[in-house]
Amino acid sequence: MKNLLNIINSNNLQKDLFKGLWGLEKENLRVDDNGYLALTPHPKSLGDKLTHPYITTDFSESQIEIITPPNDSIDKTYSMLENLHEIVSENLPENEYLWPSSMPPIIPDDDLIPIANYGDSDEAKEKVEYREYISKKYGKHKQLISGIHYNFSFNSDFLQSLHKNSATDQSFKDFKNDIYLTVARNLLKHQWLITYLMGANIAIHSSYKKCCDITRYEKGDEYHFKNACSFRNSICGYRNKEDFRVSYDNIDDNIKDLKKLISTGQLHGANEYYSPVRLKNPKSINGLDALEKDGIEYIELRMIDLNPLSKIGITKDDIYLIHLIIISSLLYPCSSYNKEEQATAIEKQNLVSLYGNKLPPHLIEEGLHFFKRMEQHLDDLSQKEFYEKIIKQAIDRINGNREIYSTMIYNMVDSTGYINHHLSVAKHNKKQSSSNKYALKGYEDLELSTQILIREALLKGLKVEVLDRTENFISIKNDTKIEYIKQATKTSLDPYSTALIMENKAITKKVLMDNNITVPNGGIFTSIDDAKGEYSKFKSKKVVIKPNNTNFGLGITILDENFSIKDYTNGLEIAFNHDKTILIEDFFYGEEYRFTIIDGVVEGILKRVPANVIGDGNHSIKELINIKNENPLRGTGYKKPLEKLKLGESELFTLRNLGMDDKSIPDKGKIIYLRENSNISTGGDSLDFTDSIDQSYKDEAVEAAKAVGANITGVDMMIQKIDEPRNKHNSTIIELNFNPAIHIHCFPYKGKNRRLGRKILEALGF
Amino acid sequence: MKNLLNIINSNNLQKDLFKGLWGLEKENLRVDDNGYLALTPHPKSLGDKLTHPYITTDFSESQIEIITPPNDSIDKTYSMLENLHEIVSENLPENEYLWPSSMPPIIPDDDLIPIANYGDSDEAKEKVEYREYISKKYGKHKQLISGIHYNFSFNSDFLQSLHKNSATDQSFKDFKNDIYLTVARNLLKHQWLITYLMGANIAIHSSYKKCCDITRYEKGDEYHFKNACSFRNSICGYRNKEDFRVSYDNIDDNIKDLKKLISTGQLHGANEYYSPVRLKNPKSINGLDALEKDGIEYIELRMIDLNPLSKIGITKDDIYLIHLIIISSLLYPCSSYNKEEQATAIEKQNLVSLYGNKLPPHLIEEGLHFFKRMEQHLDDLSQKEFYEKIIKQAIDRINGNREIYSTMIYNMVDSTGYINHHLSVAKHNKKQSSSNKYALKGYEDLELSTQILIREALLKGLKVEVLDRTENFISIKNDTKIEYIKQATKTSLDPYSTALIMENKAITKKVLMDNNITVPNGGIFTSIDDAKGEYSKFKSKKVVIKPNNTNFGLGITILDENFSIKDYTNGLEIAFNHDKTILIEDFFYGEEYRFTIIDGVVEGILKRVPANVIGDGNHSIKELINIKNENPLRGTGYKKPLEKLKLGESELFTLRNLGMDDKSIPDKGKIIYLRENSNISTGGDSLDFTDSIDQSYKDEAVEAAKAVGANITGVDMMIQKIDEPRNKHNSTIIELNFNPAIHIHCFPYKGKNRRLGRKILEALGF
Repeated sequence: MKNLLNIINSNNLQKDLFKGLWGLEKENLRVDDNGYLALTPHPKSLGDKLTHPYITTDFSESQIEIITPPNDSIDKTYSMLENLHEIVSENLPENEYLWPSSMPPIIPDDDLIPIANYGDSDEAKEKVEYREYISKKYGKHKQLISGIHYNFSFNSDFLQSLHKNSATDQSFKDFKNDIYLTVARNLLKHQWLITYLMGANIAIHSSYKKCCDITRYEKGDEYHFKNACSFRNSICGYRNKEDFRVSYDNIDDNIKDLKKLISTGQLHGANEYYSPVRLKNPKSINGLDALEKDGIEYIELRMIDLNPLSKIGITKDDIYLIHLIIISSLLYPCSSYNKEEQATAIEKQNLVSLYGNKLPPHLIEEGLHFFKRMEQHLDDLSQKEFYEKIIKQAIDRINGNREIYSTMIYNMVDSTGYINHHLSVAKHNKKQSSSNKYALKGYEDLELSTQILIREALLKGLKVEVLDRTENFISIKNDTKIEYIKQATKTSLDPYSTALIMENKAITKKVLMDNNITVPNGGIFTSIDDAKGEYSKFKSKKVVIKPNNTNFGLGITILDENFSIKDYTNGLEIAFNHDKTILIEDFFYGEEYRFTIIDGVVEGILKRVPANVIGDGNHSIKELINIKNENPLRGTGYKKPLEKLKLGESELFTLRNLGMDDKSIPDKGKIIYLRENSNISTGGDSLDFTDSIDQSYKDEAVEAAKAVGANITGVDMMIQKIDEPRNKHNSTIIELNFNPAIHIHCFPYKGKNRRLGRKILEALGF
Repeated sequence: MKNLLNIINSNNLQKDLFKGLWGLEKENLRVDDNGYLALTPHPKSLGDKLTHPYITTDFSESQIEIITPPNDSIDKTYSMLENLHEIVSENLPENEYLWPSSMPPIIPDDDLIPIANYGDSDEAKEKVEYREYISKKYGKHKQLISGIHYNFSFNSDFLQSLHKNSATDQSFKDFKNDIYLTVARNLLKHQWLITYLMGANIAIHSSYKKCCDITRYEKGDEYHFKNACSFRNSICGYRNKEDFRVSYDNIDDNIKDLKKLISTGQLHGANEYYSPVRLKNPKSINGLDALEKDGIEYIELRMIDLNPLSKIGITKDDIYLIHLIIISSLLYPCSSYNKEEQATAIEKQNLVSLYGNKLPPHLIEEGLHFFKRMEQHLDDLSQKEFYEKIIKQAIDRINGNREIYSTMIYNMVDSTGYINHHLSVAKHNKKQSSSNKYALKGYEDLELSTQILIREALLKGLKVEVLDRTENFISIKNDTKIEYIKQATKTSLDPYSTALIMENKAITKKVLMDNNITVPNGGIFTSIDDAKGEYSKFKSKKVVIKPNNTNFGLGITILDENFSIKDYTNGLEIAFNHDKTILIEDFFYGEEYRFTIIDGVVEGILKRVPANVIGDGNHSIKELINIKNENPLRGTGYKKPLEKLKLGESELFTLRNLGMDDKSIPDKGKIIYLRENSNISTGGDSLDFTDSIDQSYKDEAVEAAKAVGANITGVDMMIQKIDEPRNKHNSTIIELNFNPAIHIHCFPYKGKNRRLGRKILEALGF
């Protein structure tokens, strides 16, 4: 574009140029324990692949496709891809893995490769018919080649400002078409550069039978191509039967050429044109109608290989690098991409993909020129700093000063074998994903409960937006409804007044009493004189004096039987210093259980136990602590479901009281409690009791929730004898929580993941 | 009761003895402007008198009866009576008043006195039939005599402790019956004392024709009885035809005697026995079945006159005094009330009611003895201090050292006339009630909005409980449902998530934008660098920079067109010092309107105008302020709907800018604004626009509420030209309030009471 840089600079559009929307699509084949293509159906737990917006299959039933929704930043897009990748990994059968290379693992004969089955609808049948057509035309094995598609659109405000300030007679639609066509032409001319920098497959297995007629380097059942960058992008890779030449001069000619190929039967539709760059309009994603009517809305880069060096198949730096190449492609004037230029571009691409591992001098020069010019542009736009490292790495690779992916992969494949190496990568990746299953990339600053809810929402194919990170406030929607959710459990399911009741201990207690729910005996006082007047009523019992609203147990006094009026008055004064309302309650002996209720059903019951180790007659307490802390669920600073055990003042004090220290070796099976309090935050264990508690307790908890009108609540109940059915004397409800954490039920120390996130989504009608 | 004092003292029940439940019933005749009995129907706005638990009619359609629900303190009971009295006053027709004397005003012939009409139900018909029966038997004019019934029960925990510690073989039921019978006997013996201390009617109008055969002191159309205490309690007052003697020795004999009177046709039912003290069980309020089966639950004192010296007919001190007399009646041993003792008691009563205005020496002695013994009991119970003043006043009255009500009333009636005096009291009372109609006795510490809601709930006959005074948290219920309400507008009508959305300006704005609601142009930023990057976009416009969460306008900067990057950065830093999220918005020129929406309907629209006075060409600004401040709606400290105008630094500064001071005399009709800000809290005026605004603005406000899912919300809208229909450019929504005050729409400076409290109750399904 002429003067584009000037227009951008003089209209303060430098930052807007770098804005846009990104979307990635990534395919991975499923393989079994031995590196064979998995012939099992698409996992049911991943939902309906016909309608799921993020997780589906591509050509084959064994070929999972992950699609990120359009996102306005590379970081968010990358995190979304990683999260979806982790969700898919978590839901694979135990002995299946995601194959990390674009080229297939060990595959069966063509007729045994399963075509994706989408069910019985007309839409499903159409999908299968098309797959049968391309199976016949290209062979099923070729359709198993997997890769990444990179979708990008410029920020629409930016394009409009550009149009407005360009002093052009063009309509906005024509102007925008020209923008994307310029980018497409430059990208097609430089496709070899992306293949060189990011090509990442240099070997195939012999079961990939109809490998084309090129020099082979046989290694047992495998062929390794030492000089290649990308077998997939080569003449032997994922290409059309013929090298169709389609115009990129203007959109009309482009559409005319494609229509001709379709009308003559050379292509089934626009989606069979396997060009490295496609011009797209989201309204007719595989067709040309909306493109013709409304113009180009985004471009799709299709030449990106799966990168086995990265767990999720692509690095964030490479997403930035491709973005820079797109920006450069816009800024570099390029008016034509004629037949001759197309031939040159494809020739370079063919050369680099199979033999370009070490670039010839003229391509080094061309590559360096491209990046030097990019550097200059960034400098002109005052945007150089952020991208400096990425550009330097690219230049170093072109110069040969830094290893490219294909070389690195070749070296590993050469020593371990194509299948073995990639299989061990696949297994390693799955193990790593599993150890991290409670957390969500890009959301690490959110509470675990919110992360769990978002994860379940993504698995259900819902759209999630974070509205306020510090508040853990998100929206979740599908095509028919939107729900707003704060801190995972503050939802539209609960009336505002219900939350306000639960916020106030005294009111909650009153409402529970009015509804015949068992609560600790005692009284609620708003005047110290009234409370003093009741001394004689309480003095013979062990009591708890507490302010109505308290955090961290501040202002609470516990008095033993037959306490003095002086101690009583003192306790009252402490409590009244914290709140205008206080509660005096009989102390209840028992163990505390959390019942989490969603929509009238107890979905999780948890008992918290103080930090402890169990002796093995062999290790010291210090060693036992270290062993227990190896559990990947334990971390520090509340970023993981459980906290690591500590050996601080409190713990050592407790041990001294037991006549032990950290070097003591407890007998086998002996449980040593390190603290008195059972908080998870001080290393306590969470034990799942959901299935092993008498129904009578669950009924009481549900009644308590009903009394305050709560759909989602955490009921804290003191229970004396867990084996006995409930009665009015052996248990009591001490608190209702309007914002119960759900992660404690999903990742307990012992017990099952109760999937409370999913339960909340179901209760919300998703 | 034997040793009762010892049992109470040795079991620490001193305070519990004074606990109990109180309920008052009070009748008032309605009169017209001239002191004639009003013959209009019971006001419709007071609800259905057949089912309303607090406001109904007694014998006559013109005889309003107010019933307080049982309450556990005298203060609360008194406030409830006052509130119900005020609510009744407010809802009377313009020229009707509550007659403040127990004896009737000017009444028509018996056949013109309307019997209360309760409608067409069987229950209603039964009520009318009974009224016709007693009309014939006693004459309608006698049934117009009105008074106060004082219902009291001891605290049930207290009675149970007493029973437990009494080492008796009696069942609790028998024990409790004896308790109340002891009280009843002593009360009946001392009924003359209550009549002396509280008797308050000493005159009748001649239209009260069949006045019995006693010495008359005619004064025109009236008869004044100089030596009387209580015409109502006299032999000529509200008595049975015969002086029935019923046993109070034990409950069985009591019931047996009553049943005999009924079976022999002397009484229609237990409710026709006009004893000054009744034994009651709430399960069969006019019958004897439950009394027989479950025993006495409370006693009813029926000899209390309406006290015209108190607006609501009784003073709080007298309620305490009666309570003390009940306590004394329990503590004073009294095993019998035989025929002879009954005769003596009635004789004293007859003497005192018509001639006892100056007590004979033996009654002075008996009275003093009663109170001296009471004093001693209180001393023994360590409860003397609180009641000292009340006992002293009683003793002074008995001694003749303090005027009794009947003397005070006689003196006024003697100079002004019975009808004239009481009519002027009735008119004065109504005027006073009206000037106070936004506030509620016993709830003055609550927000005005909550007081309004409670007032509307009482008018609807709902039960109200204050759960937390400082939080303005109440419950409202009827027989079928209960609703919890905080600060009048935080209810079960709104989902919790909706309130949380409105709590967050940035999220609210986002949700509104997503729903195509017009909000100020601008951006939401969480990083100062991002915000700085947008300088060029904003700099040419007047903008507001504000933190996401702010109170009192802290952290807000307004920048005029073409502001410098330095001022911009400075504004950003100030805002980011207050919150992690800030908003930058185009400044919108216009006037601010509050739309309060309840259940999808705009129920009130208000414009706030800065504190101002309007010149009359005569008074100075200072004088105009004083005149404006005479409005009873204006107060200080937010206890009234509007605040008084001030003449402080700000106001004087504004005047100086206008070239004026507080002594300036503005031209007639000229409006002088004293401040720039329009807050009500600084003397601003509230103007009701509910009926005078284009529907298009209401539609937009309703859409905004829908967008966030709000049932109750206050929408703040900036409007440029109130006469033009709304479009995207002439108005914008700047805030949604999840806790909008309703009092501003009920008591605006100019406009109608929009009854938002009633609207909320209706929305809640009441």
